[in-house]
Amino acid sequence: MKLVTFTVADEHRIGVVDAEQGHVRDVSDLLPAGAGVLEVIEHWAQWVPRLIADAPAVATHPLESARLVAPIPVPRRNIFCVGKNYRAHVAEFGRSGYDQPDRSEELPEYPVVFSKATTSVTGPFDDIAAHPGVTSELDYEAELGVIIGTGGRGISRERAFEHVWGYTIINDFTARDLQRNHKQWLLGKSLDTHCPMGPYAVSADEIDDITAVQVESWVNGEARQSAPVKDLIFDIPELIATISAGITLLPGDIIATGTPAGVGIGFEPPKFMVSGDVIEIAITGLGVQRNRVA
Amino acid sequence: MKLVTFTVADEHRIGVVDAEQGHVRDVSDLLPAGAGVLEVIEHWAQWVPRLIADAPAVATHPLESARLVAPIPVPRRNIFCVGKNYRAHVAEFGRSGYDQPDRSEELPEYPVVFSKATTSVTGPFDDIAAHPGVTSELDYEAELGVIIGTGGRGISRERAFEHVWGYTIINDFTARDLQRNHKQWLLGKSLDTHCPMGPYAVSADEIDDITAVQVESWVNGEARQSAPVKDLIFDIPELIATISAGITLLPGDIIATGTPAGVGIGFEPPKFMVSGDVIEIAITGLGVQRNRVA
Repeated sequence: MKLVTFTVADEHRIGVVDAEQGHVRDVSDLLPAGAGVLEVIEHWAQWVPRLIADAPAVATHPLESARLVAPIPVPRRNIFCVGKNYRAHVAEFGRSGYDQPDRSEELPEYPVVFSKATTSVTGPFDDIAAHPGVTSELDYEAELGVIIGTGGRGISRERAFEHVWGYTIINDFTARDLQRNHKQWLLGKSLDTHCPMGPYAVSADEIDDITAVQVESWVNGEARQSAPVKDLIFDIPELIATISAGITLLPGDIIATGTPAGVGIGFEPPKFMVSGDVIEIAITGLGVQRNRVA
Repeated sequence: MKLVTFTVADEHRIGVVDAEQGHVRDVSDLLPAGAGVLEVIEHWAQWVPRLIADAPAVATHPLESARLVAPIPVPRRNIFCVGKNYRAHVAEFGRSGYDQPDRSEELPEYPVVFSKATTSVTGPFDDIAAHPGVTSELDYEAELGVIIGTGGRGISRERAFEHVWGYTIINDFTARDLQRNHKQWLLGKSLDTHCPMGPYAVSADEIDDITAVQVESWVNGEARQSAPVKDLIFDIPELIATISAGITLLPGDIIATGTPAGVGIGFEPPKFMVSGDVIEIAITGLGVQRNRVA
C-alpha cells in the first residue's frame, strides 16, 4: 500500500494512492479522528484490514492535484541517518576534505549514525530553503528511508525485516560548511526544509527485493547518483541490529540508510546547489520527489 | 516554579513542588486533560496565572514519597547536546584519545552539537541500564539543561533569554566505546536510560543569574565535577543563536549545554562506571539527581 499525507483546507488527510491509475483515496474518515500516517503504521495490523475492505468504496481524486506533504510530516523524534555507507561515496567524501582534514578514504569500521531534527522535514515537491547567511554550501543526498513498524530493542539481523513497515525516499540535504565546521553533523543536516520526504510511505509487501531497488538522483535533469541498495556497506539488517542494540526503536522511526556517490562535493570543484536548482530523486517502486532550491 | 512529573497508578501527573517545605501539589486537574509538563511549558503565559491562583488550594503530598519520572518524560524530539564546551573538559577529552586518535586539546572553533534519542530519557532517581554486551565503557556527564519556552528561528544573542522557559539537570551519560567507534556520537549518547533528567523543570524566574550556578557531580560520594556555568566556552545565548540560525526551536526543546572536567575518561586510566555505582548531580537551585548503575 502507498500512503500519502495531503492537505485540504490546511488539515492533514491520509491518502491511499493508486500510482498507476494516478488517483488517491482520502481514507481519513475510515480511521480514528486525528490519526495520521504515523498512527496507521503504528496500528497497521489492526487497521489495515479496514483500509483494504473499505478504501475501494471511498471516492477517488486525481493524485496530481493533491497537495502532498511528507508522508510523516511530524516524526515522533529525529530521523536516524547513516553516513559513509556506499563505498564510492566514502571515497568522494574522503577526498573532499569535508569529513576530516586528512582526506582519508578509509571505509568505516562501524556504522556512522547521526540524526536530522524533525523540523527539517518537508514535502516531496516543496521548495528547499537556501538559508543565505547561514550556509553557502548546499548539497543533496538521495537515500532510501526505512520505516520501522513494530518497535523493539535488541533486534537481531535475522529478525530485522519483521520490524520494517516499509520505505520512503529521503533527501538527506546538507549544509556542507556547517557539517564540516561543527564536527558533529546535527546542525549541518537539520536546517528547516532540508529533509524532503516521500512522496509515498510504501509498505514492505510492495517491494519484492529491497536490495535490488535503485537509488537515483538528477540535478536540473543531469544524472548525478545511481546505485542499487545492495551496494550498502552496512545493510538494512545490520543497521537495525546496530541501532536497536541499546536503543528502543519506535513505530514510525525512520532510518535514512546513506547516499551513493555523486553528491555535489564529489566534484572538483564542488558543485553546490544554488537558488533555482531542481533536485529529483527516484527509487524503484517508491516514486519520485522533486524539490527546487528557493 | 518547580514542576515535576510523577506517577500515580502508572499515570503521569503534573506536580508543583515546594522544595523547602518538601511537598508537592498535584495540579493535573487544574489543567486540560492529557496535558503534561511539556504542554504547561508550551502554554505557560496562558496557564501559569491559573496555577499561581489555584495551586495553593490543592492538597499537598510529601515530595519524598512521590514517584518522580523525568519532568519531560517523552520529549517531542531528540535532545540537543553540546560537546567540548568547558575548557578543562576539552583538554581531558582531547588527552583521552576518545575524540580523535591524534589527541588534540584544541578548543572548538564552533559549537559541537549532537543529539540524544528521546528513549534515552529516564527519571532523576531511576537506575541506569549497564547494557552489557553493547558497551563496557560507561561514563557520566553532569550538565545544565536549558528548556526552550517560546520557539523560533533566527533568535539573536540579545533576545535569546526571552526564549528560555527554564532549566533542568541532565546527565549526558555516555557509552565511550560507541562514541569513539561510530565517529558520530548519536549511538554512544542514546542508549536507553542514558539521559537521567530532573528532578525538576525550574522556570527561569527562580534563578537570579544562571551563569553563577554551579554544576557538580559525585560518584559514590567522591566529588568529580564542579564548575560554574559562566565557564562555558559557548554561552547560552550563543548556543541558542547558533542552533536557531537555521533550525526552528520548539517549545519544550532541551539543550544540554556541555559538561565540565572530571568525567571518567579524564582519569588515567579511565574510571568507568560499573554496576552498583551511584552518580549524583547537583546544580544550584535545580535540585539533586541520584542514579545507580543497574
